[in-house]
Parts: sequence; C-alpha cells; structure tokens
Amino acid sequence: MLKIIRGDILFAPDKNRYELWEDSYVLVKKGIVLSVVKELPLSCWNQPVEDFRNCLIIPGFVDLHLHASQWPNMGIGYDFQLLEWLKKYTFPLESTFSDMETARKHYESFIHELSASMTTRACILATRHLPATRLLVSMLRESGLGAFVGKVNMDRNADPPLLENTEDSIEETRLLAQEMQEFEQFHPDTLVHPILSPRFVPSTTPELMTALGKMAQEYDLPIQSHLDENLDEIAWVRQLHPGDLDFAHVYERFHLLKPDKTIMAHCIHMTEDEIRLIKDRRIFIAHCPSSNCNLASGIMPLRKYLDNDMLIGIGSDIGGGNTLDMRAHVQLAMQMSRLYYSANRSFKPVSVREAFYLATKGGGRFFGKVGSFEKGYEFDALVIDDGYKKGLPDKPSLETRLEKLINTDNPVLIIKKYVRGKEIQRSSLK
Amino acid sequence: MLKIIRGDILFAPDKNRYELWEDSYVLVKKGIVLSVVKELPLSCWNQPVEDFRNCLIIPGFVDLHLHASQWPNMGIGYDFQLLEWLKKYTFPLESTFSDMETARKHYESFIHELSASMTTRACILATRHLPATRLLVSMLRESGLGAFVGKVNMDRNADPPLLENTEDSIEETRLLAQEMQEFEQFHPDTLVHPILSPRFVPSTTPELMTALGKMAQEYDLPIQSHLDENLDEIAWVRQLHPGDLDFAHVYERFHLLKPDKTIMAHCIHMTEDEIRLIKDRRIFIAHCPSSNCNLASGIMPLRKYLDNDMLIGIGSDIGGGNTLDMRAHVQLAMQMSRLYYSANRSFKPVSVREAFYLATKGGGRFFGKVGSFEKGYEFDALVIDDGYKKGLPDKPSLETRLEKLINTDNPVLIIKKYVRGKEIQRSSLK
Repeated sequence: MLKIIRGDILFAPDKNRYELWEDSYVLVKKGIVLSVVKELPLSCWNQPVEDFRNCLIIPGFVDLHLHASQWPNMGIGYDFQLLEWLKKYTFPLESTFSDMETARKHYESFIHELSASMTTRACILATRHLPATRLLVSMLRESGLGAFVGKVNMDRNADPPLLENTEDSIEETRLLAQEMQEFEQFHPDTLVHPILSPRFVPSTTPELMTALGKMAQEYDLPIQSHLDENLDEIAWVRQLHPGDLDFAHVYERFHLLKPDKTIMAHCIHMTEDEIRLIKDRRIFIAHCPSSNCNLASGIMPLRKYLDNDMLIGIGSDIGGGNTLDMRAHVQLAMQMSRLYYSANRSFKPVSVREAFYLATKGGGRFFGKVGSFEKGYEFDALVIDDGYKKGLPDKPSLETRLEKLINTDNPVLIIKKYVRGKEIQRSSLK
Repeated sequence: MLKIIRGDILFAPDKNRYELWEDSYVLVKKGIVLSVVKELPLSCWNQPVEDFRNCLIIPGFVDLHLHASQWPNMGIGYDFQLLEWLKKYTFPLESTFSDMETARKHYESFIHELSASMTTRACILATRHLPATRLLVSMLRESGLGAFVGKVNMDRNADPPLLENTEDSIEETRLLAQEMQEFEQFHPDTLVHPILSPRFVPSTTPELMTALGKMAQEYDLPIQSHLDENLDEIAWVRQLHPGDLDFAHVYERFHLLKPDKTIMAHCIHMTEDEIRLIKDRRIFIAHCPSSNCNLASGIMPLRKYLDNDMLIGIGSDIGGGNTLDMRAHVQLAMQMSRLYYSANRSFKPVSVREAFYLATKGGGRFFGKVGSFEKGYEFDALVIDDGYKKGLPDKPSLETRLEKLINTDNPVLIIKKYVRGKEIQRSSLK
C-alpha cells in the first residue's frame, strides 16, 4: 500500500546540502521512501493523500547515546564531575533497578517521554540487571520506536549491589542477545536490537572484555561504550592498563572496536593516535554536548572530526544530559563549536545544516538507511506545525523555519511521528 | 490589606545561602514582604490565605539585558559573529520599527511571551525610534511587569534608516525621559522607568556621549550599554579612540559609568584595568551566556568576577540569546562556567545556588530591594506547580526541586506570577 504525504519537506542527504521541497510529496511503500516529488505522478492521482500542507516534514532525530535508567536523575548533581557523579548519583540509582517495580515505573515514564519527543531512534544503555533490561526491551518494542538496547557490563570498580560476577555478566549478556535474535527470526520487522554495552574500561576486567569481543564476532553484535570523556577517567585507564598506548587501544586490543558497528560516546580528549584509530576502524562518535557541559568534561573538537570525515552522531546522554529534546542537543553542539572557535580560530563553527545532518542521517547511518528521505531510506519522520499550518502570508523560507525550530523554544506541535512508515502513538504531545 | 501566601518557599539572600521554608507563609503588605514564617501569628488567624501548598514559591527572575525589538529574529543568523550579525540581521529588522504597525505587532508578541515567562523585571533596549519606544513603554505599563526601557542612541557607523542626527538623538532622548519622569510624578507606583541606552561606543559620537553623560546627571537617569563582547568590536573601539586606555575607559571619560546605576552587557574580554574600573564604579555586569555562545563571543569568566565581589546579573540578550526562559540562561551560565573550569582549573564552576542568586537578587539589586523575600523586599514571585501539587509521598528536598526546575525542561505550570504584590495577567501559561 502506497503512502503519500504532503507538506514542506526538508532533509540533509549530506552535511553540505539540504534538500528543500516546499509543498511537495513523499511517497512511501512498506515503510521505505520511494521518492520525493513536487507533482504527483498520474498513477497516484486516485490514491489518498495525508495532507499536511504548510507543516514541516523532516526526518526523525537519532539519539546516539543515552542511559534510560538515569532518566529520574536528569538535571541533578551537575555540581560534580564524572567519577564523583557516577558514585554519588548514578550508581545508587542504577542499583534500584534490581527491583522490577522500580524499573517498570522509571522505564514507563522514560518511554512515555521518548515517544512524545522528536526522537525516532535511540542507542540505549540500561543497567547491569537482565530482568529489568528485558522489560525495557519489551516496552520499547511496544512503543514502535527504533532502538539498540544493551545490558550494562561491570565486573570491577563498582560497589556490591552493582558489581557483577564475571561469568554471570558474560552469561546474561549472551542470553539476552540470543533471546533478542530469536525474537528477530520470528519478527523480522522488529525495530529493537541488542548491543553489547561494557560500561567503560575501568568497569570491566580483561577477562570480561575478551569474552565480549568474542561475542561480538560470534553473534554479529554491535557495541557501545565510552571513550575519553574526562581527564581523571583517562588517567585511571592509563593506570589500569599501563601497557596499552591509550584508552582507545585498550578497546582495540580486546576487539571492541568493530568497524561500522561500534559507538563510542564523548571522545573529547582523543590523542592523534586515537583519532587515527577511531577513524580507521570507522567507529561512530556519539557527541554529547549537554552532558559534556553539565559534567565539566570539556568541548569536543567537532569541527576537527567533521572535517576529518569521521562518523559522528549526537547523543542526549541522559542523565548527564538534561533533556530528551534533540533540538536542544543540536543547538548546544553548535554553541559549543562556536565557543571552541572563539578560542581556536582555525576551527570554524559548525553550521545549522551540519548539526542537523549529524542528528539525523549522521547518527542514522548506525541503523542502516535511516535519517534521510532519499530513495530506499526507512521513512522515519516528524510532521511539525511550527505555526504556519494555516498558511500565513509571511511564511519564511524552509531553511529559516528549520533554524527557528532548532534554535528557539517557540512552541511547536508534533502532528505525526513515523518510524519506518508506522505512526508512533503518543499519549502527550511535546 | 495583608496578603498571606502559603507554599514551599525558597530564596537566596546571598550567593552562599538559600532560605528554605517548606510549607510556610510569606506575609506581604502593600506589595512589600513583611516576613516569612513557619507558623502564622495569632493576629493572622482570621485572615484569608492564598493556599499553594506543595507548590514552589520563588522570587521572579530578573532579565538584566534584552533587546525587545529583536524578538522576531530570535534564533536566526547565529552562523555569523557580532558585527556581521548586526549588519545582516539586527539593523535591517530594527529599521522597520519606524512603522508603528510593525512595532505594535512585534512588541505585542514580545510582551505576551514575557508575561507568560518566569521573568518579572527586565532591562530593555528598544530601537532608536521615539514613537515606537513610547508605545513599548505604555504596553509594558499595562502588562504589570517591572522594567527599565531605553530608546537606543546611534549617530554614527550605521546606515541611513537607523542613523540618527546627533541633536535629534539627544533631544528625543531627553523628551522621553522627561515624559516618563512626569508620568512617575502622577503615578508613583509605576514599575516602568527610563534608562539611557547608547548602543555601544562605535555607534555614538563623542558629542552624543558627552550629552548623555550630562543628561544622566541632570535627570538622575541610569544607563545601559555593551562592553567587551567581541574581539573585533574591541579592536574597532581601540581604532576609534586610540587615546583611551581601553573600551571601558571611553565610557568612563564621558561619565557613562555611573556608580550603582549602570549596566554593561557581556564584559567577556575585560583587561585587569577594566575589571578594576568596573568594580570601583560599582557597575552591573549583565552576563548573557546564551548570546555569548550563539555569536561565538566567548566565555565570560563568571567565577573570577563573582569571587571579586562584582555586581552581576543574568540577561537573555534577545535576539542574540535564543529564549526568554531565564531558567535556560541560568543553566547555561553554569554550563559555561563548567567549561571554563575544564580549561582553567583554578576557577571553580558556579553552583546552582550562585547562579540562581544572580538571576534573582543579583540582577534585582539594580531595581532596588528586588529578587528576594527578605523583610522590606518588593514581592515579585512565581508560584510553580512542579508536579508535587497533589503532595506525592516522594517529594524531593526544596533544593533538589529547584535544581530540577532549572536544569531540565520537565513540564511545570506557573500558577501565579506577582510583581510588587500584584498578579500578572497572562493569556497563556508556560
């Protein structure tokens, strides 16, 4: 069945170019974009049209890094930096996810908000708890959103309620992957996939990392973790692994930098060696500007990585980040790049177009053909009334409307939200 | 008539201290705070109480710097820096305020949003146009908000539609001040006051600055302008005034640094000489973090100024800043101080308490006894339902609620908004 959607269509097929289609149509079949056209072809004349004239139609945002379990802590404790913050706020909260009622309450609230938001796909860390992670997976399946979800691994440098036994950690991770892959066999259309999620180098023994590296091969699993977020964290990794060249090369040694299939969050303080390695391995960088401000981690040199043609997306990093609204993260990515420029004039600020690209197709590439309306892409889309639905005469250009959408908190209404062509049910609009 | 208001009361009498009054009462007479008490005194037992149990009651926010006329441009053009941005976006927009219908449309929209926001007082620049500025003044009087409002002066380095004749600029400025002061004689309760507003050094001839310096004395007028926002701007000032020590000393020479009565916006790149001068003259610094990010101006060393006991408030700087929501600016002030710290470890990040103080009493001091609930202060207040109105059992501490209010975009409802004891009418809630 053909789906025809009419409106003011904008997407960024690459970082240097918008496609701008005022009052046009996107044709979708089985969730996949066939084409975007200015005039409907004759063959479509008798087909129903979903008419969103004067509404903005853009690809849904991809949130490349977030901790669903930290949702209740969002906005709290930013007077501390990473390692202290983890100890004082994150770990105590994550411990409570051993209780299924607590997990259900928090995950329900989280998915409610994620559904209402402009995010269509997300890469999510849960906690170390298998039952609670299973619950999150099943709730995400129901939501219709697209996601990679990982049970966190941590078998050292944690306090007992969160500390795992190495064997259990490996076994539970394997079990979840097997279950989810079996589910995929019976539901090939599922949008929720497993991802290996070692917390970060200091939380995982060499034995555990070895096993996860092997598992990634054996089960063809993607991987997500953290890299070079904070200077104390980096010093700690150096202390734990004095034989390795740097933080990134620890992951490399354990085969945890799987080409095209790995996300490393933050990557603020990478050495030139690390930059080379991350680029060579085609690792996705999840840039998390809000979290990096909140925890005083520093400014990632986004322009440098962008001009180096590295794979980059944007992450909210809830709870280090303080909103699920990806527009705020796109905005802050630009603001931080401007501050970086103000101190290092050789790195030009990142433009609205570049930042928008990163938050749609940039991160979307991790999911396959996602984040654009080019032919063959999965139709993840937002239909937004940004105040011109009634067709005011002074409607600005499509580019300016996107700029306003991202740069201000002007009230807008999400009229529809699609993931692979299916509408997402939202109990509240945001 | 005594006003008694009940709720969870929080305010910061100084930067190092909160007053936390859970389920307490604030007693207000003729718009002035008498006291905050845990138990009502006997004499009040038969008085009506405005009962906002479980709601947060905090001082209204003070926006120490904004351009009302730039409201329609908010969020646009941030790919440029200050001088280019002024030329491409700001000046063309401000030119249109010669037309009163245009001015009315934009100012109506602006005041509608300001009324709905958490701001109770603001220091506002209009445009160079006397009629449109008069209109803004009368609309602000009607709104019930507190404000200083200035007609902008610019008699050089502008294009003709905005460029003023020096004499006209002086005369129109004097006229507006006289009119507003006359109005004050008949309406001593008015909350809207005049303020001299030379745009910045490059826009004003020595002749104009001389006249404004004299006018400030003669009519006892406060002053607002811009200082050390952008490196190109600073170089330009140096070029225009090679005989002066620096940017700030140009203002000083023309008697435009009036002790306790002057606001200088931005103050990012001050030299040690300038810091000394600004401190000695007791000049208010309007810290505008959002604008400073958006226009790549740089990070103001907030911690340095704060520890140096300078007078500081926070400004949205619409349209360089991209929201009227002062919470976002408080949040960004902290985020930028954390980034500053991440590069200069000797300057500790600014805490939630310090930033909240700056956005309430810090800027409020420019208005007199404003921004606190201490005895004798004008009762500017926000009553906020932050989700606990029904009294959930897991209500967090008052401090944590404030932290969440400022650090997240969790939905909250402004139940009431008072300025000097009078409720502000808002046609929409935010």
